[in-house]
Amino acid sequence: MSVLVVGSTALDSIKTPKQENPRLLGGSASHAAVAASFFAPVKLVGIVGNDFPRRYVRLYQKHKIDLDGLQIAEGKTFHWAGEYEVNMNNRRTLVTELGVFETFLPALPPSYQNTPFVLLANIAPSLQHHVLDQMRKPRFVVADTMDLWLNIALPDLLRLLTRVDALVLNDSEARQLTKQDNVIRAMRAIHRMGPRYVIVKKGEHGSILSGPGGMFLCPAYPLPNLVDPTGAGDSFVGGLVGYLASARGDLEGNLRRGMVYGTVVASFCCEGFGLTCTTRVTRPRIEQRVAELKKMVKF
Amino acid sequence: MSVLVVGSTALDSIKTPKQENPRLLGGSASHAAVAASFFAPVKLVGIVGNDFPRRYVRLYQKHKIDLDGLQIAEGKTFHWAGEYEVNMNNRRTLVTELGVFETFLPALPPSYQNTPFVLLANIAPSLQHHVLDQMRKPRFVVADTMDLWLNIALPDLLRLLTRVDALVLNDSEARQLTKQDNVIRAMRAIHRMGPRYVIVKKGEHGSILSGPGGMFLCPAYPLPNLVDPTGAGDSFVGGLVGYLASARGDLEGNLRRGMVYGTVVASFCCEGFGLTCTTRVTRPRIEQRVAELKKMVKF
Repeated sequence: MSVLVVGSTALDSIKTPKQENPRLLGGSASHAAVAASFFAPVKLVGIVGNDFPRRYVRLYQKHKIDLDGLQIAEGKTFHWAGEYEVNMNNRRTLVTELGVFETFLPALPPSYQNTPFVLLANIAPSLQHHVLDQMRKPRFVVADTMDLWLNIALPDLLRLLTRVDALVLNDSEARQLTKQDNVIRAMRAIHRMGPRYVIVKKGEHGSILSGPGGMFLCPAYPLPNLVDPTGAGDSFVGGLVGYLASARGDLEGNLRRGMVYGTVVASFCCEGFGLTCTTRVTRPRIEQRVAELKKMVKF
Repeated sequence: MSVLVVGSTALDSIKTPKQENPRLLGGSASHAAVAASFFAPVKLVGIVGNDFPRRYVRLYQKHKIDLDGLQIAEGKTFHWAGEYEVNMNNRRTLVTELGVFETFLPALPPSYQNTPFVLLANIAPSLQHHVLDQMRKPRFVVADTMDLWLNIALPDLLRLLTRVDALVLNDSEARQLTKQDNVIRAMRAIHRMGPRYVIVKKGEHGSILSGPGGMFLCPAYPLPNLVDPTGAGDSFVGGLVGYLASARGDLEGNLRRGMVYGTVVASFCCEGFGLTCTTRVTRPRIEQRVAELKKMVKF
């Protein structure tokens, strides 16, 4: 089955202590769509300007991503520039130029409206709502978010939580949303806000699923060489939903395995700038890391 | 088989945002010995003053801990007082009164010198050396340490690393010891300093084993109610070595399971002040949490 991915489509200029890379393909939808494409057909919803490099369109196409929902508008593509500190844990935004993103209103082509799996990647909650409004009974809806929306669009986000099957967010955001210091209690509080499934991302410390069948503690793939973590969270959720769309049988078992697949795609994402490593990965290499992780948690 | 545990035996006064508890039984050896006692006979090496409450001796005895190596000296028992911040992640030392600990020189009774498993719990590396000097060919030696010894006794600690089978330390200490920001690289660097097995503790994020058979990613037991984390690391390593001493067969498989058992004992430790929860636990309750963890990592 196929996956609809909506989110930001951007050009990222990323600086780390070791290197600087201007105008890479980035944005939550780009990372999530490429990650999902290893497992299922993907339909992308987004907007770019007429400065959007042709090679990035070809890159989407290489991953067989349906671009009927990608608007190309007069103006500049959303541009983000950021810099990572020495330990790679903290990053600082240097530039945010919204460009054509400022007027983005996702209009779904009719061919998108029956897509069974929907990933509302990180984007303003009002736009996530707008996409959901156009869908006909999706089978499973996953929403990702970030601290920005907790700060400036909380009412929209809270309303969204009653409309999604799963919410994905990181640990500090879970604490901020619920005013609970303890992550386990924070997850319980988020269930009370709506989603049946809550997934908390903890970066190098893995992720946690909470659902009707209990908790799943998903390890991160141990990486000795972290090049650029930009998009890792988007890759995680993209791989997760892509896997879900490809799998049959028990939902919670699939969610667990989907988190592991998402973790592995995210590990490749971190090993190169932007999407450079992710786009070179093959399914057998993904399966190999999944098998390694399986060995690494066995006791 | 039995376990020798050497470390500090102290009275801890612990303040958290919710409660204050003076003069609890504490110290690395107390926590580790009680934790190990669920799995194997324990021989304790330590020192207390003649102010040491009789009820704490009875508590050791309840856990069938051999006290032939516990010196009772004229003077005051080591007293530590600390305070946890609201999020329970940072703690501040308020008082350190060494008392009789200042002149501690661990002398092993002859009945201790053939103990097959040795846990050098957190204590000055020179004292850890002194214990090893008195042992006759132990089968497996595990050393725990802390940032204090990295700061004030690094040469002793580095020399110790060539004498132990496994080193246990937390992630920030691993980074400090190796000057490596990345924990995976830090663990590799520690192998080059001596120990065949390196175990990094990450608190609520679990722990990692690195050894000849690869890595093991050990989850932490998810706790919605953290009361007092003092001694959790000591309980972890105590449970680990206790389990090792009780298990037959493949060493690495036992190390993995030992870490899970240690994790579970540590989870009980965190649910009460000092040793109050740990000492009430039973083996069946430990097995239950181990089984729960097994379910929580399955994919």
